[in-house]
This record gives sequence, structure tokens and C-alpha cells, in this order.
Amino acid sequence: MGKRIYNFNAGPAALPLPVLEEIQAEFVDYKGSGMSVTELSHRSKWFDDIINEAVERTRRLLNLDDHFDVLFIQGGASLQFCMVPMNLALEGKPVAYLNTGSWSTKAIKEAQIQGKEVNVVASSEDKDFSYIPKGFQVSQNAAYLHFTSNNTIKGTQWAEFPKAGDVPLISDMSSDIMSRPFDVKPFGLVYAGAQKNIGPSGTALAILRKDMLDRVPDGLPSMLKYSTYVEKNSLYNTPSCFVIYAIGLVLKWLEETIGGLEKMEQINREKAGTLYDYIDQTDFYRGTAEKESRSLMNVTFRLPSEELEAEFVAQALKEGMGGLKGHRSVGGCRASIYNATGMDAVKSLVDFMKEFENKEG
Amino acid sequence: MGKRIYNFNAGPAALPLPVLEEIQAEFVDYKGSGMSVTELSHRSKWFDDIINEAVERTRRLLNLDDHFDVLFIQGGASLQFCMVPMNLALEGKPVAYLNTGSWSTKAIKEAQIQGKEVNVVASSEDKDFSYIPKGFQVSQNAAYLHFTSNNTIKGTQWAEFPKAGDVPLISDMSSDIMSRPFDVKPFGLVYAGAQKNIGPSGTALAILRKDMLDRVPDGLPSMLKYSTYVEKNSLYNTPSCFVIYAIGLVLKWLEETIGGLEKMEQINREKAGTLYDYIDQTDFYRGTAEKESRSLMNVTFRLPSEELEAEFVAQALKEGMGGLKGHRSVGGCRASIYNATGMDAVKSLVDFMKEFENKEG
Repeated sequence: MGKRIYNFNAGPAALPLPVLEEIQAEFVDYKGSGMSVTELSHRSKWFDDIINEAVERTRRLLNLDDHFDVLFIQGGASLQFCMVPMNLALEGKPVAYLNTGSWSTKAIKEAQIQGKEVNVVASSEDKDFSYIPKGFQVSQNAAYLHFTSNNTIKGTQWAEFPKAGDVPLISDMSSDIMSRPFDVKPFGLVYAGAQKNIGPSGTALAILRKDMLDRVPDGLPSMLKYSTYVEKNSLYNTPSCFVIYAIGLVLKWLEETIGGLEKMEQINREKAGTLYDYIDQTDFYRGTAEKESRSLMNVTFRLPSEELEAEFVAQALKEGMGGLKGHRSVGGCRASIYNATGMDAVKSLVDFMKEFENKEG
Repeated sequence: MGKRIYNFNAGPAALPLPVLEEIQAEFVDYKGSGMSVTELSHRSKWFDDIINEAVERTRRLLNLDDHFDVLFIQGGASLQFCMVPMNLALEGKPVAYLNTGSWSTKAIKEAQIQGKEVNVVASSEDKDFSYIPKGFQVSQNAAYLHFTSNNTIKGTQWAEFPKAGDVPLISDMSSDIMSRPFDVKPFGLVYAGAQKNIGPSGTALAILRKDMLDRVPDGLPSMLKYSTYVEKNSLYNTPSCFVIYAIGLVLKWLEETIGGLEKMEQINREKAGTLYDYIDQTDFYRGTAEKESRSLMNVTFRLPSEELEAEFVAQALKEGMGGLKGHRSVGGCRASIYNATGMDAVKSLVDFMKEFENKEG
């Protein structure tokens, strides 16, 4: 077997090595079943245990009470962009959105496609999405307030979540779910594509407050109604079984190896702090997000020229550090340091950044 | 490692052992990338190669020309039940369906939910879906004719596909895709949940004839439009990467180890023939489907009593044969013998059936 690289991919992203090794060890014979986990019936006791454990771990990690259901829905966050207004808008009321980047913009577009009255409450587009808006007011007439908790492309993150009074919050937490504890009570819905912090790609995790079910209109296609997933414990049809299994193992690692989300946040703060501290010490690397809006998950930075950026990414890969190229829509460099990318990777990256600056700066 | 069982699950179902072993061997370090296949960016050269290879193998195995696109869409066949009428119905024309069981019925229901004018051209509901209808006429005014090529629950299969003149055929081939060659020309769309013949659960394979794109209405959500998948080679958003990778390996096994779909069909005919021949020799086991409508994939049968059926399933499992219980909606027994369940499994099952009859009959 070759050497594992330090993986700074933005998603699909690094997974904890012990999880990968456990999947590998039991891949051809899942716990003495005589079958691969990919060959188990989704109606079997084996798989019931898998999905129920993933749900229960989610409940414990996020401290969810009985007002919330935990769902697994195929199609990633992108399908949620359309399911949210389809299910949770209210007749005669606007839907409210905060626009902090590409993913928010896509979510807004999908609500507009459906002809909803979309109220963009605040946007950071005026400064190329380099900051998180403050000081806005949310109309209490809105059906919901949607925001993207962490912006992978521009490297910004909501340090504190927006306040919306009695208007339910809805958040796309694809890139920072399970990276820190948060109070779920103001949320009508939290959803997250799995492929950044909690597993491989192929499912979204959704946490739905039960009162939201009253909003689901009659006449929606079965697969596009949240109620279908609630009624059948996400087993109306065959779900993405392997991904749910892997998510369960990642959540086990979070609970049992890391020790929960307070611990995880502390580690994530140390990792991001180490990188930003170094970036702030030099003029060679320049962070692209405003300081108080910086993401703990995606550290975006520029070098003095695009040529140097390309060289940086290429040399880093030779040194065993992958995924440092910025999103194709914005260029530059980006180190995604999700839960599974450890302090060893971050330290190794900072060492390389110093060397590269000494040589090229 | 424990002993692998003979897996007769209806889906998720058996996968070829060499495929599982290949996945296991490279799971922590995919081809020297230093990453698991689950950690690769879907925008990387690594994954481009994976998805392109899966597409090309599909093209070769099914003999597809440039009139067809090969797509991977999350949500399984159940999401296709709603996407088909949403995308491919035509204003002022009815949509036509053949009803041969639970899955057809669900597909029909989803078209009705959308308010489409649904014309059920023929149905075998009068005899509990135990046969495939014949002698029906399809109005040339229909936008399409939808049918389920193989019915997993009742154990029937279209030996020859329906004729519909110039009306495009649309088929849910979830349970027999890649089990036999067929002429794709009359089809506007073929779709299949992966989890029976071609991979783990978590994606549908869709084969779309290009002229169908003219039908996709403006104003659909991005994730529910076939055009989105065609334009972006199924990479508009992060797809179910691991499942597409596994599908590619199953298709490689089909091409390189089995030798293509003619060979696969021959093996499948021998397997099903062996089981049906034995069932027809005894009065203890009774096939539930009419002979000329029998499925080569799902062999459904009853024993003299439900008690004996339960005992049969339990004893078989002790002997290393799993998944023989019939679908929860109909009871009885069912041996699903998809591509990856070999003649060794079938012979072992027939031996056990003989023993069980001798003991209990």
C-alpha cells in the first residue's frame, strides 16, 4: 500500500483513517453476515441497526429532542435547494434568504424557479462575498430564513447564527455540520450533503423540526416530500446504504474517539488558528475573507501571482499534500480542514508554506 | 474472515466477489492516489476517469450510439417515477403505462399525482400480476409507453418488449438491466436503480435518447431536469461517487470476466432453468408466475404452508443461503438470481430444496 497524502479536498474530502480501515476490514464480510455491507437488504435487521445507530448518534451529538427527525435523502444539498421551498414555503408569505456566496445564490435561484416570492434580506455580493453580513432585519412575515452556515468557495462562516425571531431558520450546513455544537431549537430544518464532514458523497443528512410537516403541501411527488422520509424512517425506497453506514462510523469516531462536538470545535479552532496565524504573519500569502468572517473549515488565500499559485499547488502535491487548489470559479488556493484533517496535516502545510515562501518569495 | 453466504437478496443484492475484493484491496489508497476512492474530489482527474469508464462500458455493453446519453442520477428508480412524467410528458397528449405489479403501480401513481392524463394500456392485476399482458394496442397519440421490464415481487418479466410503433418506450429496468442484450432504439429512456444487477444502492443509471431533451419543460428545478445531467456529464453537483466507482467495476467484470451480455444472458437462462425445472418436477414447491411470463431474475414460489415457508427460509440461512423470503407485501419464497449470483448458488439451493422436501414433504 502506498503512503496516504494529507488531503485538503473541499469535498468529497478526507475521512478518518480508522473509519476507512474499519470499512476495509469488514468490506467482504460485514460482521459475520457473510455479505458485504453493500449486499445487505435495506429491509434487514443488519441495516435497521445501521440506520438507527446513525440516527441515534446524530441525536446525541447534536443534542436533539423529540421535536426533531433525522432523515437521509439522496441528491445532496442541491436537491434540498428545491425541496425546501417546495415543502416549507407558505401561501401568501415571502421566503427569506441570506446570500453569502455561490451556494446561497443557487438556493435562491431554485426558490425563484418555483415562482416563490424571494426576499434577499442581506447579501455580501458587494464585496465579492468576502464577509458575513450583519445588522439586517428579518421580517416576521417570512415563511423561513435560509442561510449557508459555511461558504466553502469564499472561505467565510457564520460565527454566530442569524437571529430571526419566530421565523424558523433553515440552514445548508453541508460544510460545517458536526464541526461545532449549536442550538438547534430556532431551526425548522438543517441539511447537509455528507461529503465534507460526515461521510462519502451520495446522501444529505436532514434534521427537520416536526412542526414543519404541517407545511408540506398535498400533491407533491412522493420522493420530494419530507413527510415520506419521516413516515418511513428514510426507507420509503432503497436509500444510499453504504453512505449511511459510513456516516454511522464517522459519527462513532466523533463520539468515541474525538469525544463529541465541543472537543471537535476546539481542535478545529486550533487547526484554523495555526493556519491563519501564519498567513497573517506574512505578506506572501494573503487571506481572502475578512478576518471576523473567516471559516474554520476552508482557509482561502492568494499568492502574489497565479503562476506562483499553480506552482504552490503542484509542489505541495509532490510533498504529499493534495487538494489545495481554490474552487474553479475563483482560483487561488484553499486548504479545507474539515474534522478528519488533523493538526499533523495543518502543521505539515504551514511548514511547506514557509519553505515555499523562502524559496519563491 | 467468515464464510460468504449464497446471497439471494432481491436488492441490494449480491455483487461479484472479485469486485468486492478489488474495492477492499484499494479502499484506503486508491491506485496510489494516497486517498480512498471516497475521498477523491469529484472534479479530479481520478474521478473523471472513473465516471467516464462507467459511461463507456455502459455504451459498449448495451451497444449505444451517439443518440443516447448515459446518466447517473441519485434517488433510485423511485425518483425516476416522478422525473419521467415531469420531463417527458407532452402537452395535450396522454402518457401510457403498462401495469405489471407494485413498481408499475407506483410509477403510474406518480404520474397521476402530477395531474397527467394516464392511460393504463394493459394490466395483469386481474390475476394478481402473475402474468405479462399480451395483445394490447398502444394509441399513437401517447407521449410515451412506460413499462417495468422485470417484476421483482411477482417474479414476472417481459420476454419480448412491448411494441408501440412510433411512441417512445420508457422502461424501469432496475431488476434486469445488463442481464441480457436488447435493442435500445425504440426507447426514449431506460432507467435502473443500481442495487440489483450493477452495483450498490444510491444511484440510478439512466439512458436517455437525445430527442427526449426537446421535451424537458422550462421552469423545472435544476436537479429534476434530465438536461442538467446531460449538460454536465452527471456532475452538476456531487454525484454518488462510490456507487459510480463500484458500478464501473461491475461493468468491467461483465465485459472482461463474463464476456458481455450475450454470455450473461446464457448463464442467467441456465440458472433460472435449473431452478424452474426442479420446481416443475415437484408438487411441494409451486411457482407463482405463469410459465411463459416467468422472470429469469426473481424465482417466486410457495410451499404447502406459511409455516413450512418460514421454516424453509430459516433452515436455508443456517445452510448458508440468505435472502429467500418473499417480498413483505406478498409472502412466500423468492430466490433472486441476478448476474452476480452464480450457478454454484443455484445448484446449492436446488440441493437444499430437495433435502427439505424429503424431510418435510
